[in-house]
Amino acid sequence: MISDRHDPEGSIARAAKACSNWGRWGEDDVLGTLNFLDGAKRREAAALVRRGTSFSLSQRFDMDGPQKGWRRRTNPVHTMLDTGTDAALGLQGFPHGIGGADDVITMPLQCSTQWDGLGHIFDHGKAWNGRPAGQVVTSEGDLVTGIEHMAPHVAGRGVLLDVGRRIGDGGELPDGFAITEEHLRATADAQGVAVGRGDLVLVRTGQLSRVRREGWGDYAGGPAPGLSFTTASWLHGTEIAALATDTWGFEVRPNEFEHAFQPLHQVAIPHIGLLIGEMWDLDALGQDCADDGVYEFWLTAAPLPITGAVGSPVNPIAVK
Amino acid sequence: MISDRHDPEGSIARAAKACSNWGRWGEDDVLGTLNFLDGAKRREAAALVRRGTSFSLSQRFDMDGPQKGWRRRTNPVHTMLDTGTDAALGLQGFPHGIGGADDVITMPLQCSTQWDGLGHIFDHGKAWNGRPAGQVVTSEGDLVTGIEHMAPHVAGRGVLLDVGRRIGDGGELPDGFAITEEHLRATADAQGVAVGRGDLVLVRTGQLSRVRREGWGDYAGGPAPGLSFTTASWLHGTEIAALATDTWGFEVRPNEFEHAFQPLHQVAIPHIGLLIGEMWDLDALGQDCADDGVYEFWLTAAPLPITGAVGSPVNPIAVK
Amino acid sequence: MISDRHDPEGSIARAAKACSNWGRWGEDDVLGTLNFLDGAKRREAAALVRRGTSFSLSQRFDMDGPQKGWRRRTNPVHTMLDTGTDAALGLQGFPHGIGGADDVITMPLQCSTQWDGLGHIFDHGKAWNGRPAGQVVTSEGDLVTGIEHMAPHVAGRGVLLDVGRRIGDGGELPDGFAITEEHLRATADAQGVAVGRGDLVLVRTGQLSRVRREGWGDYAGGPAPGLSFTTASWLHGTEIAALATDTWGFEVRPNEFEHAFQPLHQVAIPHIGLLIGEMWDLDALGQDCADDGVYEFWLTAAPLPITGAVGSPVNPIAVK
Amino acid sequence: MISDRHDPEGSIARAAKACSNWGRWGEDDVLGTLNFLDGAKRREAAALVRRGTSFSLSQRFDMDGPQKGWRRRTNPVHTMLDTGTDAALGLQGFPHGIGGADDVITMPLQCSTQWDGLGHIFDHGKAWNGRPAGQVVTSEGDLVTGIEHMAPHVAGRGVLLDVGRRIGDGGELPDGFAITEEHLRATADAQGVAVGRGDLVLVRTGQLSRVRREGWGDYAGGPAPGLSFTTASWLHGTEIAALATDTWGFEVRPNEFEHAFQPLHQVAIPHIGLLIGEMWDLDALGQDCADDGVYEFWLTAAPLPITGAVGSPVNPIAVK
Repeated sequence: MISDRHDPEGSIARAAKACSNWGRWGEDDVLGTLNFLDGAKRREAAALVRRGTSFSLSQRFDMDGPQKGWRRRTNPVHTMLDTGTDAALGLQGFPHGIGGADDVITMPLQCSTQWDGLGHIFDHGKAWNGRPAGQVVTSEGDLVTGIEHMAPHVAGRGVLLDVGRRIGDGGELPDGFAITEEHLRATADAQGVAVGRGDLVLVRTGQLSRVRREGWGDYAGGPAPGLSFTTASWLHGTEIAALATDTWGFEVRPNEFEHAFQPLHQVAIPHIGLLIGEMWDLDALGQDCADDGVYEFWLTAAPLPITGAVGSPVNPIAVK
Repeated sequence: MISDRHDPEGSIARAAKACSNWGRWGEDDVLGTLNFLDGAKRREAAALVRRGTSFSLSQRFDMDGPQKGWRRRTNPVHTMLDTGTDAALGLQGFPHGIGGADDVITMPLQCSTQWDGLGHIFDHGKAWNGRPAGQVVTSEGDLVTGIEHMAPHVAGRGVLLDVGRRIGDGGELPDGFAITEEHLRATADAQGVAVGRGDLVLVRTGQLSRVRREGWGDYAGGPAPGLSFTTASWLHGTEIAALATDTWGFEVRPNEFEHAFQPLHQVAIPHIGLLIGEMWDLDALGQDCADDGVYEFWLTAAPLPITGAVGSPVNPIAVK
Repeated sequence: MISDRHDPEGSIARAAKACSNWGRWGEDDVLGTLNFLDGAKRREAAALVRRGTSFSLSQRFDMDGPQKGWRRRTNPVHTMLDTGTDAALGLQGFPHGIGGADDVITMPLQCSTQWDGLGHIFDHGKAWNGRPAGQVVTSEGDLVTGIEHMAPHVAGRGVLLDVGRRIGDGGELPDGFAITEEHLRATADAQGVAVGRGDLVLVRTGQLSRVRREGWGDYAGGPAPGLSFTTASWLHGTEIAALATDTWGFEVRPNEFEHAFQPLHQVAIPHIGLLIGEMWDLDALGQDCADDGVYEFWLTAAPLPITGAVGSPVNPIAVK
Repeated sequence: MISDRHDPEGSIARAAKACSNWGRWGEDDVLGTLNFLDGAKRREAAALVRRGTSFSLSQRFDMDGPQKGWRRRTNPVHTMLDTGTDAALGLQGFPHGIGGADDVITMPLQCSTQWDGLGHIFDHGKAWNGRPAGQVVTSEGDLVTGIEHMAPHVAGRGVLLDVGRRIGDGGELPDGFAITEEHLRATADAQGVAVGRGDLVLVRTGQLSRVRREGWGDYAGGPAPGLSFTTASWLHGTEIAALATDTWGFEVRPNEFEHAFQPLHQVAIPHIGLLIGEMWDLDALGQDCADDGVYEFWLTAAPLPITGAVGSPVNPIAVK
């Protein structure tokens, strides 16, 4: 329960203080909770590959996406530099019958299946590890905690908590449903899986299944199931390395405070240093886990090392 | 040896015929040699995770890249939609002290570490599996074999053939050095590793080490070490799933024919259906393999599922 | 009246034949009806500057535009490379207190106030002057009639035909209203202005006033007032140099044939060689002309000379 | 003469104080020296159209431009959304034989022929009219003096000062040549033309002729002829509305102080409020003026009204 719906700022301050990881990995840290993910965890995770079946947890990147322009976020625009039609008409100027096609993309790094980098959210002008936001992310990008620093790290044990399937109706939580620590624990218990240090935790709400069926609507920013603000201590205490959901933002919307905007982000990213994934497609994996009862797997979700980026599109691959 | 330096077109036609996989996986196939990579191969590969150490095989994506404008290929342009400097000055209009940064990228999909999709190269107007190029890749993109089809598949056994380290001087092959089947076999033998069906083979030439030291120069399209045209039959016969190098194009440049442009591409992509990776950074992995003598590992190299793309930037992750 | 609502293809063919300007200015022509606009016309037009008042006829270019993604047309995305917030925080690294801001735009050339170039529309694979479309516009752009060829030419006598104000209710024609030659003539007569060879004719329907008041809705591609297909002969016979409207496409929508898409474009651009402007903002100019009764003026509407472009955004300037 | 080569900051401060137009047009002003350009000036200018010959003063916008990546400035990338090759192959899905081509551009607004907006340069954190830079230009763009405010205004009397032809060798000033007030006055006198309030002044150095012949080299940011820092008082005192040159920046490079970067910009834009044009192509116009001895003309140079932009590409049209 939110203690005071009228005081997001105080509540955030208390949660931030309680959950802070500032300084935990030294003042130069650029990885946050990815520090929890080590070689031992990866060895443990690799043993989870039993059938050799792989799943992409990425939505497709194209114009048929959820973005509607909020803060200039658009859907990806993919254009061709060379095409097969040009080649077919013999217009490319290459020798011995070779032809080719090239392409270009323009996209917000937050447009679809993504990781939020540590420079994505600030609290009162402070970025991860207590650094001044203005010195971390300028118009040249994130000069300190750019997503490129995470390039080799995001491979380890994935755990799916299919809260939508356990608690929701028809496998889907309704919009506005706040997932609490109790829901997370109950789901894990029912699934027979434990969540702990260094894990990459995926929470399926089922909202993506719904919008896939009914149309995007307000998927980007509108009402959605998601984590309750009260899960901050769970996110911190479990020492997980990352958390991703099938929703636009990983927390419940409308937010649980009267006048607020993504308060859990404000704790999770700058204070916990948690890697957050959004808009992941957990449907096929969820079905498979329901079928075989195994909710843990090898997961690789490598961000593109775009220098100075505060996020990255990603095609996460789970292998069971 | 190239049989006739003056006849690229005839040589390509002969190699194409000898190495064709058209129809091998049915007329609707969109995966090419990725069909060789199955669950059994993934199970075998997962057992290669022994220390849990992970390596990113991606170059960074930024303006300091190799592209110089050939065929409108540029380096990535990354810009910010929101910044920490705006947040620090209290200009973002969010409540309770939350601030944020967002970003956008514009880049050719062929600008840096990448996979070439099956729609990237044509032979006399024919794309993979014998389809008419003009009906496969229009200005709307690859309507048939778009890279999105490969989204879940590229995870399996990686094998590094560090030809640069075995044969080169100081770990680097000179520009223009044509790597033959004999070089590949000798390297594998010396390393004590076998290459076979479904493998993701990485060939390190050392050129990237050189340009990293000396500047990009003509890395994008200029002279380079790389696979000899004569390796087409090896690429076909080994039944590997994919091959990637640390060079701009995976084949030797200047090409081995008198007047030619990327003749091995013309066989490998449309006829063999081979997934080709280019501009991978194999240096850290190469050093580690040299240190511990183990040249095989788990490899995930998931393309972004950009609908209709003929290629994708990728951050490949090797785990040993 | 459309002679046969069921036969757009035949009707187009007849109109194309009747109105063809192919060969009129030689087989190498790249200007079409801009050939009608000469120095004498410009001298005549300059004399129309009486008060020295200038009007921009351009909509603003930003995310709050009409595009909704049809054929990947988006609204412009404008991002900053350097900002005043960075400068204010002293983060730019320049000497002696200088600071700066730079910016970037990504936009379809057809996103807002624009000229359609001669390579924008084809008829059965033929571009302007009878050239094969496939040899004119490849993925490298318009190799023959790129908009850059028009760079110096579009300055001359502008004439406003405010059909919306003359015939519409409250100054606005309803969506679906087909403007005929009679409407055009009646408007010119009532306004006391003549239209002739070399003129740049602006037709105001009032639709932009409406969507400005009511929201974009389906401005981009939906129902709209506009020129009737039957005006093709008037467009040809008057020997005007260009025509622009305040609508998405300059012709009436839904189109007047049962199953059709922009049939007048198919005659006007490839056959007449007419320069067409769309989404111009004619409201302030229209009001001024209504106030002083003068519907002719000096008009400069210079396309950006983007090499090989099939259109260009433009800020047309009328001076009275 | 620069009074103290070692003290750019002091010199700038003195010039800024002497030349300040802050408050001249009220505290809400967004136009700067464009306020000098009024209807009377436009009437006078229209009378300069004698032959009706028009000149584009714009370079072409394409990849073959001068940019080399400084501060992420690239050359324009123009790509196609639809092509004639697609149309020729019947792949567009339109009825009755209509086909079409569309295109997209991505470009810095400072990449080629351009206007610098008032938000482009700051002095010690102050923008035009004394406003705090951090409150004027955020990552959302110029919230106060965006280039859209200039949309209708830039049409009036153009004057060419062809300093390159008067003073240079072979019509070209050498790189590093500082054009002083004396040079400007002498050129005007020799040409028989006066410069005054509200004029749009074009200064041709000839550098563009040279790079066109010899290759771009360091045109973007390297040594160049241009206005001396000492012309600040002339720029202010003449009350001209705008000034443009054929160089990358309008001032001489290397700058005349020992350690400095564009000191005249720091006075001209934030303090004088002067509209500055750069990279204009003045060659054809210069030749024509030399031929007929007439150095004044009607000039329209309308920026695209990109909301919040700190500059705009432009195709200026001179008519004589």
